[in-house]
Amino acid sequence: MDNFKFHVSTEIFFGKDQIQNLPEVISRYGKNVLLAYGSGSIKKSGLYDQVKALLKDCVVTDFSDIEPNPHLTSVERGATLCRDHKIDVILAVGGGSVIDCSKIVAAAALYEGKAWDLVLDAALITKALPLVSILTLAGTGSEMNKGAVITNTENHMKKGTGNWATLPKASIIDPTYLYTLPARQTAAGSADIMSHVMENYFKSTPDAFVQDKIAEGLLQTVIKYAPIALKTPDDYAARANLAWASSLALNGLTGSGKGGSWSVHPIEHELSAYYDLTHGIGLALLTPAWMRHILNVQTVDKFAEFAVNVWHLPVIGDKFKLAHQGIDATEEFFRSLGIPMTLSEVGIDESKFQLMAERAVQLGALQHAYVPLSVNDVLAILKACA
Amino acid sequence: MDNFKFHVSTEIFFGKDQIQNLPEVISRYGKNVLLAYGSGSIKKSGLYDQVKALLKDCVVTDFSDIEPNPHLTSVERGATLCRDHKIDVILAVGGGSVIDCSKIVAAAALYEGKAWDLVLDAALITKALPLVSILTLAGTGSEMNKGAVITNTENHMKKGTGNWATLPKASIIDPTYLYTLPARQTAAGSADIMSHVMENYFKSTPDAFVQDKIAEGLLQTVIKYAPIALKTPDDYAARANLAWASSLALNGLTGSGKGGSWSVHPIEHELSAYYDLTHGIGLALLTPAWMRHILNVQTVDKFAEFAVNVWHLPVIGDKFKLAHQGIDATEEFFRSLGIPMTLSEVGIDESKFQLMAERAVQLGALQHAYVPLSVNDVLAILKACA
Repeated sequence: MDNFKFHVSTEIFFGKDQIQNLPEVISRYGKNVLLAYGSGSIKKSGLYDQVKALLKDCVVTDFSDIEPNPHLTSVERGATLCRDHKIDVILAVGGGSVIDCSKIVAAAALYEGKAWDLVLDAALITKALPLVSILTLAGTGSEMNKGAVITNTENHMKKGTGNWATLPKASIIDPTYLYTLPARQTAAGSADIMSHVMENYFKSTPDAFVQDKIAEGLLQTVIKYAPIALKTPDDYAARANLAWASSLALNGLTGSGKGGSWSVHPIEHELSAYYDLTHGIGLALLTPAWMRHILNVQTVDKFAEFAVNVWHLPVIGDKFKLAHQGIDATEEFFRSLGIPMTLSEVGIDESKFQLMAERAVQLGALQHAYVPLSVNDVLAILKACA
Repeated sequence: MDNFKFHVSTEIFFGKDQIQNLPEVISRYGKNVLLAYGSGSIKKSGLYDQVKALLKDCVVTDFSDIEPNPHLTSVERGATLCRDHKIDVILAVGGGSVIDCSKIVAAAALYEGKAWDLVLDAALITKALPLVSILTLAGTGSEMNKGAVITNTENHMKKGTGNWATLPKASIIDPTYLYTLPARQTAAGSADIMSHVMENYFKSTPDAFVQDKIAEGLLQTVIKYAPIALKTPDDYAARANLAWASSLALNGLTGSGKGGSWSVHPIEHELSAYYDLTHGIGLALLTPAWMRHILNVQTVDKFAEFAVNVWHLPVIGDKFKLAHQGIDATEEFFRSLGIPMTLSEVGIDESKFQLMAERAVQLGALQHAYVPLSVNDVLAILKACA
């Protein structure tokens, strides 16, 4: 196990009607609130009106139309709003895109230089406006971590950033808000949770046993409850377990003490940067191909463990066969959630494979991945998904 | 799953030589430091000298001789030191007893009334001096939670308390500090971790699946590494996994979202209140008897799950038999750690059983336990351990 710092100070209000805590939480920071949200689904659901009513004593400035895979231009727009309206606190109501965007808005509002600098170099983020979130989509875990992924549409660059200052002060997670999610979002969010866990699970750091056992538990949670949430969207137990698993998947519990780069996320970031693909969909379709590509004598034991502990497959003598069974189970599971599992199904052809492979290796430091990946490795993975 | 608030803001510095962060962490709060510790083992190990050297720019007041099952008189002594020396921050160096005592010292130093009031009513704890801890014994999880257990020797009352103000600001967890622990302490700490997890695991709240999967992972961690730490006290992987599992066992991950009282701790508190028994030893010896006592048609499925998921016992048709096999495995495991598994082995006779049973039910609200326990139930459990 590697040395680590763990500091997740976000105050989580979890459960039905926890939004009643909102006025008290916001009042800790001030009266001028930037209300950040996406395309307006919170207006349809009534959540927008509820938030406005709860914040009737505040001066609320709307910051709407934050897109999926949030753009740098949105960050800049939000930061300008913060400065113009002397914002005290940002309230992000949405999924990972809204919260990610709000994190960098919070930092950019207090930064003299260009917002993109903060994406290129997370160390430049030394202060930020306080951020509170209300989650409406489980998957990214952004409500309980410091990370944010921002896309620069000018140079098609999608990159992660974030620092301790961008950790939300508080997050309200009410599983009933997830009842109205479209099936595709539920599936993509579930794949995102699993991918976060698997990126940390498949690492070469020895003896991070407790992290891996938590990882296996979170994976089993998604495997149990994602199908239930798809079949019965208002099943509280399913939504609650998925939501809490999502927060815990990427708050440091599965990754602290384990070194090295992630493998699938950097490749997926290229897909969404060039094709605006839904992040979780991209992760799901890349994952089995990546697993098959890196399965070898060094990694087979870990994949066999994964097959037994996560998928409950019976132990057999041929560990390569067992490993393949675990990978097949992963692929079948994603497919069963209704996720398109090839690039052609989502309209992506081979024309940018070379370019995306080069950028994934460069931006993702894939030489430090569980199994180091070269441009040719990434190309092979993309081709296997064609 | 029940509604919950999760707010564990303690900054954890985990790993070898993390003590180098101490001067910076302490400097956030001031220069007048109360250095709290126990019987002096930190002087033998050299840790005391290292801390003093690192805090050479501070004014350090020693608060020594905090006993296991820390006494109210120690809390009062510490609070007086804080007032007399205008203490800015408390540094607790030790295990759960030192940290627990320091938490209530931190609160009592800022409280006008009697320190015992803060034990009787945790809601009275509204502010406290900042507390930083350096862990030297894994088990209680006190380094990453707000709870503290204090014993009043006048009325033999041992009771838990704590509030958000008593959560440590930062904790340094260096697994190498555990290398010199006596075997009995390693065993007792391991049993303490497992008991915390099992108290939360065996609850009647439905659908807290993610919590239970994390619980199973933490139990498997202790089962794997406690024997290794006993055999090879300086095995880093074993000490690191036990230490991190210990913090996670009682920081809210396994218990948030699950209601009801704990079962074994209130009974054990009576044993230590009257006989000053090591907490983890008492928990271990009571646990199998408690499990057998509450095994019934309502609880058998949970115990069968425990047998399979935690002890990896093969599924069999007779679930009561399977449940008993899991309980037997638990007992055998504690015995294999060298823990005395009967009350007579630790010098406790039946003379106070009735008194202790009455107080356990009253102080522990055992009517709200997983299976509600009456005085007669507790008596039967104690007798089964005789």
